[in-house]
Amino acid sequence: MLAPAGSFSKAERDAVYRVIYARRDVRNEFLDQEVPRDVLMRILDAAHHAPSVGFMQPWNFILIHDLSIRRSVCEAFSRSVREEEQSIEAGKRALYRNLKLEGILKAPLNICVTCDRARMGKTGLGRSQQPETDLLSTACAVQNLWLAARAEGVGVGWVSILKPEELRMILGIPEEIAIVAYLCVGFVERAYVRPELEVKNWAKRLPLDQLVFDNLWGERSEAAND
Amino acid sequence: MLAPAGSFSKAERDAVYRVIYARRDVRNEFLDQEVPRDVLMRILDAAHHAPSVGFMQPWNFILIHDLSIRRSVCEAFSRSVREEEQSIEAGKRALYRNLKLEGILKAPLNICVTCDRARMGKTGLGRSQQPETDLLSTACAVQNLWLAARAEGVGVGWVSILKPEELRMILGIPEEIAIVAYLCVGFVERAYVRPELEVKNWAKRLPLDQLVFDNLWGERSEAAND
Repeated sequence: MLAPAGSFSKAERDAVYRVIYARRDVRNEFLDQEVPRDVLMRILDAAHHAPSVGFMQPWNFILIHDLSIRRSVCEAFSRSVREEEQSIEAGKRALYRNLKLEGILKAPLNICVTCDRARMGKTGLGRSQQPETDLLSTACAVQNLWLAARAEGVGVGWVSILKPEELRMILGIPEEIAIVAYLCVGFVERAYVRPELEVKNWAKRLPLDQLVFDNLWGERSEAAND
Repeated sequence: MLAPAGSFSKAERDAVYRVIYARRDVRNEFLDQEVPRDVLMRILDAAHHAPSVGFMQPWNFILIHDLSIRRSVCEAFSRSVREEEQSIEAGKRALYRNLKLEGILKAPLNICVTCDRARMGKTGLGRSQQPETDLLSTACAVQNLWLAARAEGVGVGWVSILKPEELRMILGIPEEIAIVAYLCVGFVERAYVRPELEVKNWAKRLPLDQLVFDNLWGERSEAAND
């Protein structure tokens, strides 16, 4: 049941790093072109092979093509973004208003990723001390989906300016199921070279060496000081 | 600021899918061999290029080489696993006891991944309706780290049978910083071909088509019925 697990070839490693660095949060570059079923299923199967606590695989994927449903979600987004704007510091509000923050209607497909918190019993292996690890597992599945999609030329944008209770109502999601991510999905021809929020001066990339500590919180790492 | 973003070559896509499918949650296969600094920094930089809500990059990485600290974490694990065992259904308790659930001392390096929930202000872009998306972003960083590590021949095991408050005390993590993941990290020569919990009959892989819905929760998807 064990097999060799050494490092990948240089070319394979380059591809892995390329997909990690080239992945973008897409809002506006979606093409009006259906994602074929075989491509979509490869992307979903990549998500399904994410790690999950106690191998509980708590995720579901709701594929939303229906335009009237997407219109309802888009209206819910519009209400939420007006609310959120009020919480943004005054000096950044004009910039915030000019950001494109979703591709709900422009993308031909939306995917809602959920987490069934009781899929394998109420606590289960690995969740007695950290019950929220099922949600974190589901986020790992989203990241797998995102990377596989990028390799297929498919862009993904995660929209979080949505009230979970509104999404629950629109999509008929039961009370006991947690909503983890609402994704806009579709082919793209072009994507930002750096994160769009970096390009548009919303925030800067933090230097990695400031984020790495040795042994204890706050102890500046030698490993990072190359 | 936009560049072509088409699909990868067949060889590159194969490498991306290979790393997604070959990644394992490693507990026992760690080699006693230091991960070189350049490899480690490549893996951490991959994590740092995960998506994050509002580009907040809320993560920190505590690199734990110190053996006495790892011993304290291992003792905390041992206490927690005895507690967790009581919550496992009686019929699976013998199997649970035989599972190797951590590599805290066997791996030469542990990494605690945290989330600074106030890194870019209290709410910030994308968190007014879904404040927990910063934790999910941090989980995406863990997944990037895990995949990059696999491509480098480095195994990763996520240990969640730990009380966050005990970790906080041992590692000196401030109250306002959330603890997201505790990882055991080191080179491996061999890894399980399928997830260890599947091989050891803890749980089965769920069929993907049962996890995919069309438009609304519970509507069985045609896309999945290939």
